[in-house]
Amino acid sequence: MLSRYLPILEWGRTYNRSILTNDLMAAVIVTIMLIPQSLAYALLAGLPPVVGLYASILPLVLYAIFGTSRTLAVGPVAVVSLMTASAAGAVAAQGTAEYLEAAITLAMLSGVMLAILGLLRAGFLANLLSHPVISGFITASGILIATSQLKHILGITAGGDNWPSMLGSLASSFTETNPWTLAIGIPATIFLFWVRKGAKPALQRLGLPARAADMTAKAGPVVAVALTIMAAIALDLGDKGVKLVGAIPQGLPPFALPSTDLSLIQQLWVPALLISIIGFVESVSVAQTLAAKRRQRIEPDQELIGLGAANIASAFSGGYPVTGGFARSAVNFDAGAETPAAGAFTAVGIALATLFLTPLLFSLPIATLAATIIVAVLSLVDMKTPGQLWRYSKADFAAHVATIAVTLIAGVELGVITGVAVGLLLYLYRASRPHAAIVGRVPETEHFRNVERHSVFTVPHVLSIRIDEALTYLNARWLEEYVLERVAERPELRHVILMCSAVNEIDASGLESLEAINHRLGDGGIGLHLSEVKGPVMDRLKRTHFLDELNGKVFLSQDRAFAEVSKDNGEPPPPVDHYLARGMI
Amino acid sequence: MLSRYLPILEWGRTYNRSILTNDLMAAVIVTIMLIPQSLAYALLAGLPPVVGLYASILPLVLYAIFGTSRTLAVGPVAVVSLMTASAAGAVAAQGTAEYLEAAITLAMLSGVMLAILGLLRAGFLANLLSHPVISGFITASGILIATSQLKHILGITAGGDNWPSMLGSLASSFTETNPWTLAIGIPATIFLFWVRKGAKPALQRLGLPARAADMTAKAGPVVAVALTIMAAIALDLGDKGVKLVGAIPQGLPPFALPSTDLSLIQQLWVPALLISIIGFVESVSVAQTLAAKRRQRIEPDQELIGLGAANIASAFSGGYPVTGGFARSAVNFDAGAETPAAGAFTAVGIALATLFLTPLLFSLPIATLAATIIVAVLSLVDMKTPGQLWRYSKADFAAHVATIAVTLIAGVELGVITGVAVGLLLYLYRASRPHAAIVGRVPETEHFRNVERHSVFTVPHVLSIRIDEALTYLNARWLEEYVLERVAERPELRHVILMCSAVNEIDASGLESLEAINHRLGDGGIGLHLSEVKGPVMDRLKRTHFLDELNGKVFLSQDRAFAEVSKDNGEPPPPVDHYLARGMI
Repeated sequence: MLSRYLPILEWGRTYNRSILTNDLMAAVIVTIMLIPQSLAYALLAGLPPVVGLYASILPLVLYAIFGTSRTLAVGPVAVVSLMTASAAGAVAAQGTAEYLEAAITLAMLSGVMLAILGLLRAGFLANLLSHPVISGFITASGILIATSQLKHILGITAGGDNWPSMLGSLASSFTETNPWTLAIGIPATIFLFWVRKGAKPALQRLGLPARAADMTAKAGPVVAVALTIMAAIALDLGDKGVKLVGAIPQGLPPFALPSTDLSLIQQLWVPALLISIIGFVESVSVAQTLAAKRRQRIEPDQELIGLGAANIASAFSGGYPVTGGFARSAVNFDAGAETPAAGAFTAVGIALATLFLTPLLFSLPIATLAATIIVAVLSLVDMKTPGQLWRYSKADFAAHVATIAVTLIAGVELGVITGVAVGLLLYLYRASRPHAAIVGRVPETEHFRNVERHSVFTVPHVLSIRIDEALTYLNARWLEEYVLERVAERPELRHVILMCSAVNEIDASGLESLEAINHRLGDGGIGLHLSEVKGPVMDRLKRTHFLDELNGKVFLSQDRAFAEVSKDNGEPPPPVDHYLARGMI
Repeated sequence: MLSRYLPILEWGRTYNRSILTNDLMAAVIVTIMLIPQSLAYALLAGLPPVVGLYASILPLVLYAIFGTSRTLAVGPVAVVSLMTASAAGAVAAQGTAEYLEAAITLAMLSGVMLAILGLLRAGFLANLLSHPVISGFITASGILIATSQLKHILGITAGGDNWPSMLGSLASSFTETNPWTLAIGIPATIFLFWVRKGAKPALQRLGLPARAADMTAKAGPVVAVALTIMAAIALDLGDKGVKLVGAIPQGLPPFALPSTDLSLIQQLWVPALLISIIGFVESVSVAQTLAAKRRQRIEPDQELIGLGAANIASAFSGGYPVTGGFARSAVNFDAGAETPAAGAFTAVGIALATLFLTPLLFSLPIATLAATIIVAVLSLVDMKTPGQLWRYSKADFAAHVATIAVTLIAGVELGVITGVAVGLLLYLYRASRPHAAIVGRVPETEHFRNVERHSVFTVPHVLSIRIDEALTYLNARWLEEYVLERVAERPELRHVILMCSAVNEIDASGLESLEAINHRLGDGGIGLHLSEVKGPVMDRLKRTHFLDELNGKVFLSQDRAFAEVSKDNGEPPPPVDHYLARGMI
């Protein structure tokens, strides 16, 4: 029981020296990768770079205690950083103390919400985000993020909180481009693209084994950081208008208190909820993918608690919302991490960096960080999905495109909400028109099949309807209409059999519709029978008066039901030859 | 085509003298009933009484042209009046011109929304309101309405916009009760209760035939109105502190223009949408019940257009939101109305009343109208449903009770929203955990049944899973978890067969999950096969690369799939005797 809420008790028991070595090795590699990434994502969130480092220390330790994934690496990620910038930007200006306070409060709110959802075992809420909505949201976020960083590559000041206004703002300040900044930004971007695609094969050609080549290529951003720092110092770029990171406070994260200002919380709770859900979905997808590769399991409800604890820790140590990121988790996994202890060791690495490394970063050009972000997020933009969805499912295509369009035009929050709403509306539309079929008996068998697809035997005074869906409030009205219309078409009808083999549930609204159907059929002298009602469904029906009032019977099998009520006209059904001779079957 | 949007063209063609007589007859009875009711509901909505009459003229004519129900009677109703009071009260004080303008604007917005939903054929949205939510909402509204009218019976001033505050306000002004008002209010209430329950048998005992007794009893409120007017004049109650209706403007409805003030529209659109949906659901339920009794049909999407036209007409003639009401429609039906023309004739009756009758109503005590409302709405309060729901379905009970509680405590709008949200969350929770079963072959048949419920034949290296639900984004994550967990439990597994006989749809998220399952099983050397895939589902799968990448086959029947893949271990399945002898089946 305790180890369900504290997975560390589980894996900690079998921890040994060989696992320790692997975890330490992975932690070193992830730390090297995380330092520039944390600075860059803090920049994207509109926060001082050091906040990115703060968000990469305590949260990792807390996730290591509460999380269920062995290899997930928690910290700042691109999409959540963008959402933080959007939410905090709505209540304060970037660079102010209020802005930082809003970011810290977002982490706190998000952490509390995640933890509560986890305790309520409400991980299923993440299902509301369908694959097409998530993929549309991530594509649009990638475009927004890359566009927002162009100003740092050009060395200009530009704003805009949606794509059209960003492009307009860039276009109007384009002439003020700083050539020195551009001279850093363009080569850095090209270098990082090459590192991503071409570095590994090049290193292998130089004789490195595949895995070492891969790990070395992952250190590419650190090389870009080192080279551009050197260039900035050598050429004195700070004086030539190139923006540098500047002084980063040295030392461990401060103890921070999130705001308890109710009006701020009122403004931030909706974005915090969206950040929580998006962050959770991203994290769980990554964790599940990695877990499956090693035949491990993750527990989504406990993941909520793990991420909740990580975010609360982030808030108390001056950080901002964090979640499990894809790139860093993949590196952690590939580097051989075996347990969440690797994350705790990474935290130690980052803490050491905040203690000793920050002075070295003084001359790091912001353009280098922007290049890191652009290269990372452009891989998120997915151009193939819209075409695939269009061919496969128009409804999913609609949800995907609506999410992209609204995210680009109206921002990340409305984008997610629109995607969820469109997906849900299309789902409810389909759910309100479920599948049902009129069935007849396949000759000389006990099987009943759709009369429109098979040659089957029916009699005019009996109507057998197979309902292929649970009877719930979403389709209760449909059920009444469907049955009563079919009945209205058949004046000679004396019996209706509802074949319930696929009815997994009947809720109170479905029951009321059945009662209404029973009542109306009874008025017209028509019997209503049920067949193949599932055990649990029948148990609940027995607790009501429905079965007493049913003007018909409940049969165990459709075959028995049909045999009995079709005898009602006094004649037994004719032999199969009768129908064969008439070309009816 | 034209007659789909103008149902009048349909029934107007066969209109004749005998139908005319019946319609006229019904119109007279409904008019007599409607006059006090319209005044009372306007009072409940916080509007001048004459607005209730205005809302009972043009809307009826427009519904007669566009509506599909033969017998629905449109006009002000209790719940919508309460919702109007709540929405208009949020933007202006009762009695001001702004309040009236808000009510008119609500009618306009609601009319436009209903018409648009109708043109979009979005009647399915009404499905979001389950029976337990509607019934909870109506019960709570009945309690709120009755409580809000107590002050008129007592002759005191009291306020409050939720139940606790209403009760508190009543309690604090209780001592100011006006005895003369009470002397009108209490007997009127008792008389009207008696009219509802005891008048018909009493009149029958006096020798009236059943139908005439019923119709006469329906005129009870008119008797109460007449008697209390006479009492007020004779005893000069107006001077004794009894509030009277007072001067009602004489004449036909004025031409009114709804507000085009954008900030007002921004404040009112959410309540207008809720009024539209609640009004639509109430109206369609009534119309469907009545139509079924005469084996007629209504067309929900066209009903939206009919109610939309009625509300737009109400706005332009100084009225407020209207819908089809239960009581008046039942009277119309019982009185023998055959076509919507009866509604148009009723409109003429009410118009005549506004021209000639209003001076007679000067001395009508408000307490009489309050008594009319209380007696009408207390029949809406349903005490039996909670117990029934508790026994039948805890989820439906939760939605019902949440709706009642929130409506009483936080008002009608939040009440409806809560009910819909709770219902939807519980639905989504269940939808995210659909039913699936591991199946095996029933010996010596081709049937496959749940291994937990039947004695069936399985082989250890083949796992057959029957999925009893469409694969959609709501359960896509579940599918992956379910299949991979079952696989992880069985190290000797070599084949998985997904039996898709109940899978009516696979959306893009479901497809991605299948691809992920295929990929992961492939990594472990396990084949993935599908059986009994439905035709339309297969057609769509063929448009993707999934079938090319599937590391297994698609079989027409589960039996063939099982027979083929279970041969994979080189041995044919042993004869049935083998299992019988070992007590395995």
